[in-house]
Amino acid sequence: MKLLIVNPNISHSVTDLIEAEARRAASPGTELTMRTAPFGVAYIETRAEAAVGAFATLNELAEHHEGHDAAIVAAFGDPGLAAAREMLPIPVVGLTEAALMSAAMLGGRFSIVAISRRIRAWYQETVEMHGLAGRLASIRCLEESLRDIGTVQTDKGEQLQALCEAAVNEDGADVIIIAGAPLAGLARSIADRIPVPVVDGVSSAVRHAESLAALAPRGALAGSYAPPPVKEWSGLSPALGALIGRKS
Amino acid sequence: MKLLIVNPNISHSVTDLIEAEARRAASPGTELTMRTAPFGVAYIETRAEAAVGAFATLNELAEHHEGHDAAIVAAFGDPGLAAAREMLPIPVVGLTEAALMSAAMLGGRFSIVAISRRIRAWYQETVEMHGLAGRLASIRCLEESLRDIGTVQTDKGEQLQALCEAAVNEDGADVIIIAGAPLAGLARSIADRIPVPVVDGVSSAVRHAESLAALAPRGALAGSYAPPPVKEWSGLSPALGALIGRKS
Amino acid sequence: MKLLIVNPNISHSVTDLIEAEARRAASPGTELTMRTAPFGVAYIETRAEAAVGAFATLNELAEHHEGHDAAIVAAFGDPGLAAAREMLPIPVVGLTEAALMSAAMLGGRFSIVAISRRIRAWYQETVEMHGLAGRLASIRCLEESLRDIGTVQTDKGEQLQALCEAAVNEDGADVIIIAGAPLAGLARSIADRIPVPVVDGVSSAVRHAESLAALAPRGALAGSYAPPPVKEWSGLSPALGALIGRKS
Amino acid sequence: MKLLIVNPNISHSVTDLIEAEARRAASPGTELTMRTAPFGVAYIETRAEAAVGAFATLNELAEHHEGHDAAIVAAFGDPGLAAAREMLPIPVVGLTEAALMSAAMLGGRFSIVAISRRIRAWYQETVEMHGLAGRLASIRCLEESLRDIGTVQTDKGEQLQALCEAAVNEDGADVIIIAGAPLAGLARSIADRIPVPVVDGVSSAVRHAESLAALAPRGALAGSYAPPPVKEWSGLSPALGALIGRKS
Amino acid sequence: MKLLIVNPNISHSVTDLIEAEARRAASPGTELTMRTAPFGVAYIETRAEAAVGAFATLNELAEHHEGHDAAIVAAFGDPGLAAAREMLPIPVVGLTEAALMSAAMLGGRFSIVAISRRIRAWYQETVEMHGLAGRLASIRCLEESLRDIGTVQTDKGEQLQALCEAAVNEDGADVIIIAGAPLAGLARSIADRIPVPVVDGVSSAVRHAESLAALAPRGALAGSYAPPPVKEWSGLSPALGALIGRKS
Amino acid sequence: MKLLIVNPNISHSVTDLIEAEARRAASPGTELTMRTAPFGVAYIETRAEAAVGAFATLNELAEHHEGHDAAIVAAFGDPGLAAAREMLPIPVVGLTEAALMSAAMLGGRFSIVAISRRIRAWYQETVEMHGLAGRLASIRCLEESLRDIGTVQTDKGEQLQALCEAAVNEDGADVIIIAGAPLAGLARSIADRIPVPVVDGVSSAVRHAESLAALAPRGALAGSYAPPPVKEWSGLSPALGALIGRKS
Repeated sequence: MKLLIVNPNISHSVTDLIEAEARRAASPGTELTMRTAPFGVAYIETRAEAAVGAFATLNELAEHHEGHDAAIVAAFGDPGLAAAREMLPIPVVGLTEAALMSAAMLGGRFSIVAISRRIRAWYQETVEMHGLAGRLASIRCLEESLRDIGTVQTDKGEQLQALCEAAVNEDGADVIIIAGAPLAGLARSIADRIPVPVVDGVSSAVRHAESLAALAPRGALAGSYAPPPVKEWSGLSPALGALIGRKS
Repeated sequence: MKLLIVNPNISHSVTDLIEAEARRAASPGTELTMRTAPFGVAYIETRAEAAVGAFATLNELAEHHEGHDAAIVAAFGDPGLAAAREMLPIPVVGLTEAALMSAAMLGGRFSIVAISRRIRAWYQETVEMHGLAGRLASIRCLEESLRDIGTVQTDKGEQLQALCEAAVNEDGADVIIIAGAPLAGLARSIADRIPVPVVDGVSSAVRHAESLAALAPRGALAGSYAPPPVKEWSGLSPALGALIGRKS
Repeated sequence: MKLLIVNPNISHSVTDLIEAEARRAASPGTELTMRTAPFGVAYIETRAEAAVGAFATLNELAEHHEGHDAAIVAAFGDPGLAAAREMLPIPVVGLTEAALMSAAMLGGRFSIVAISRRIRAWYQETVEMHGLAGRLASIRCLEESLRDIGTVQTDKGEQLQALCEAAVNEDGADVIIIAGAPLAGLARSIADRIPVPVVDGVSSAVRHAESLAALAPRGALAGSYAPPPVKEWSGLSPALGALIGRKS
Repeated sequence: MKLLIVNPNISHSVTDLIEAEARRAASPGTELTMRTAPFGVAYIETRAEAAVGAFATLNELAEHHEGHDAAIVAAFGDPGLAAAREMLPIPVVGLTEAALMSAAMLGGRFSIVAISRRIRAWYQETVEMHGLAGRLASIRCLEESLRDIGTVQTDKGEQLQALCEAAVNEDGADVIIIAGAPLAGLARSIADRIPVPVVDGVSSAVRHAESLAALAPRGALAGSYAPPPVKEWSGLSPALGALIGRKS
Repeated sequence: MKLLIVNPNISHSVTDLIEAEARRAASPGTELTMRTAPFGVAYIETRAEAAVGAFATLNELAEHHEGHDAAIVAAFGDPGLAAAREMLPIPVVGLTEAALMSAAMLGGRFSIVAISRRIRAWYQETVEMHGLAGRLASIRCLEESLRDIGTVQTDKGEQLQALCEAAVNEDGADVIIIAGAPLAGLARSIADRIPVPVVDGVSSAVRHAESLAALAPRGALAGSYAPPPVKEWSGLSPALGALIGRKS
Repeated sequence: MKLLIVNPNISHSVTDLIEAEARRAASPGTELTMRTAPFGVAYIETRAEAAVGAFATLNELAEHHEGHDAAIVAAFGDPGLAAAREMLPIPVVGLTEAALMSAAMLGGRFSIVAISRRIRAWYQETVEMHGLAGRLASIRCLEESLRDIGTVQTDKGEQLQALCEAAVNEDGADVIIIAGAPLAGLARSIADRIPVPVVDGVSSAVRHAESLAALAPRGALAGSYAPPPVKEWSGLSPALGALIGRKS
């Protein structure tokens, strides 16, 4: 089993966090290829940043997916996920989606704990896009600004734990989703201190990508996730162009 | 990894179909314990039959869950699933739920193909209960009555394939879910003839149960899926009573 | 007019409360048959307890419905209601359902006041199942544990009244539903102190059951509430088996 | 028990149909006061006609409600219902609302059978306003124009029965609502030929109005159904003005 | 371009506020005809008052629409809007609707700031009627009673600004709608002090009415907004009767 | 008034169609700047193509927005719209959004008529994203493949008209939206033959962009549409980078 994991933002330190958690979660024998977006922003919090990250992610996936059994869009918010799923011949999973699916199988309603106030609207819209807003108890977030995206887990550990507890006690969450690639691994380290199951996007995505690759090896030939209709294009990388259409 | 799989109806031939597909889907090293409801009906199609199956399933799970890493409620419609999840200290997955989660990660909208007209309302309500009705394209079903629940796959193979095609072409399905334990394995055999990914409840449940056991080994201590408050009970099996409350 | 009222839990003191309120609410000439579940728990707060109560209720209804014009599932949360409606040839009403219908005809949005925190998720899901979540303003509950289910009305009267007032003033409730059989009759006694109409499940169920019996004397022969398809069964009581299928 | 029944349109022949069915449905001892709108249209099919009917109905209710225990807005579509409920000190029920409540307690999903194509949008919006669109299977209607609103039952009896059957067989209805005051009584006469329970607005409204009067004798003093804030008015009938505000 | 603007309540001082803001917002060359309801209440806060205002508005529109390119129902809550749209051959816009459309194009979620607590339920229902409740962040309102509807802007300016800020900071509003004709013009005067776009019903309605008149000059001849079917009527003004039906 | 109109695909012939319709719709004195995406595909039908178009559009908007009062994303499906709205200091409108707002003010439910089957899923998701799916009657589309995107109006005129009629007669549409930039202007030419108002995205967007520029000249400083938080970026155009963050 070979998985391609693309970090849609440009932070190699975040890619390292993702990789570490992905290796802890992967089944024996699963190999990981890590890619970091070559352009974009340090951390995606907004719809505009997500649009940039989506395009960078599609390019990376187009360029590197061959030889892999499944791929992962490794930013919470799933930038470019539906586009990638439509375009690639292998299963593609996003961090938000994967976490939502795990959470949905562990309880009734779930809360998302996130690292900034600004990021909430984007997460809310992502949950709605996946059709699961009816099961979202709340999105809670750190209110103060971050010093360093790479050390948020140690700088803000206590506040993050308090947010989890408030989600359970005040919002009625049965499950907590720790959101955002910079928090990859945090779920694992604080799970013992939270009284409900804690779910993480990276580990969920790795496991679900493995499952989809095992369960459904063929891509769609019909419906809205079939390969795009052949059409003229210009100004794209050869790999992306080859997936999206033919050059006139 | 040890999984407990309970068939909520009394048909041992259906348990055999479930077991065969579960073994094909399971990861290497996963061990399966199969149980068949000791009372109830031959095949669950209605809310009343599901209520009976739910009680039988809770009894089996209470009696046999010890020593397992996760459990599966192996009837489409998930009788007793939420109750079992609340009661047991290990993850529990249902066939409908598992198939919905797989389908949601493979496309936008999905259709369910089922073996009888009567069963549709129950399936519809199950999808609504899981909060995913917004992604359901349609439920299509065989209209004629079945001769034998054990041979439906061979008797009705062509009609089932036609239902899949109609769901894609007329209802806008991106993914097909083949529903009902008596059809376990059918997805695998007809996948090549259907132009979209085909998902099966049994294999999805096995893979997702494995994933949940790996990802979230602890049960809830708070929230609405925590163990039930201790209270008086009577007339239950010792195992079920021990999980639900204390004897006065 | 003869009504069969089944208390899905094993507490005879609760059955007595239900009976007292039912007699106050019933039209002249209506006769009541009271039944208490012979197995199960003292008070239903969880999905697992509701699954047990549903099975017990179906057995009681199967055994005793003959000669009655309508039946009532007398626990808030309506355990087994849809199953009973499908199975019996007479109208069946649940306490939650009946209270929701009364409340919907008295105002715009309603709140439910309940006796424990744990019970909220189950009530929320019940309202969703009835398709009326869009009109639910809130569910408020007692936070401290109860000493005695039979004396909750006197022990907690002031707190329950405060919850009603908060629902009106803070949550925008136009109507209050006092939930849970142990509170049967409370609505009647505090109605004068609450500034909006107060609705009770037991009295609503008695009146609506009478109305349905008068309005729609025949059961469904088609659709998803027709009698279940005949099928093999085993291990059920003769009465339940006779309603659900035929013995092989 | 005294009920005030207002027909929001000007057709005395329709008032007679309503009265006949209301008398068949009423409990022993219930007295009925019938009123017909003194201005408006012969039969309400559109939003504009409903707005006219609402105003006429409010005037009739203001003028005549004293001495009654409950009131009924006797046009399907419930023109002015929420306004009347807010304004009057007694319970008020509408035909659509009453039929929806009966239907919701008799099955899962219901269809409405109506007498003209144009009326469908208004009925759809009425069901949405009551928050029960999620349980509506379909609205089916006569397609040809009516010769005479007073004889639609005899002129179109077979077509109406065919619409009921199509709703059950094709749309998945568990219950049929026969809509529109001109069809009052039709449900009663064709019930034996329809394989699911058939519900009628007039008889449901009579029974539910009786129940509300028995269950909840006080009106709201707070919330959005409390009496309107006192304010200046002009140009209204003394009775309506007295209920809505004070003359400056 | 000629616009007919009808104030559904009897307050000429409010009509003056509406006119002043409408003139500020109108494109060069747009002419305005102002009408005030000849009967009804001083300010509409409730469903009953809205039903009265709807009838008064329909009469004014019927009497005066000829020679205009579009019309505006100038009370927040849009009394009679759908009825007017159905009845008139020219486009008709309501204040709530117009403000919602502006807000929806300026951000994701919006809050409504209103002048009394009682008015909230009616506004909530209006947003739901327009199908945009999913984008409503909150409705915030002044809690104390008003001394004078004509001077609310100066009496309550600071409190209104505080409500706007709370909507942004606590409810997640991206846009603020200042609701209610008595606040016409307030949006313009406080916009600089609110950190998100502020939208006003009157100015939005004027601009959108101009746009609809320019874009879609013909009325519906089919569908549920076609002219009402011809039918008997009585007791209406000749103008209203001529639009609604023919005199028998 | 100066509007910047960006065509998110690379077809200059489509840009010409958009410009011609935009000029017909614009108010006197409005100036238009037209831009065509420098890279991407000939016509956007899929999520992947939309992701590419979104990025190209953001680049064009960043590069050219200065000196304009509002901007238009000129592809139905609104690629990059929310991102652009968040990023730019001026109002931004999309074709789908603009058409939905016009349609919502002209009737109750609307249908979209589109040029290919494949494009339906993307349009459906766009309507859902705007929160107006509850008012969508249907999306109807041409089934056969197109010979030439530039001549679809003449090649397929009759079929498109038939789709409009079917939407009105069979789906209950009160308004028709002619979707897709290649059909710009078609609404204008066939409006006389369709019995309900016909709405076009380009003309609606031009008028609504003018209105927003007139009504709400300031951008958000708070909420989820405030300018993105400053952060590191790399590999973006200077104009896009300047809007999204600061270079490290």
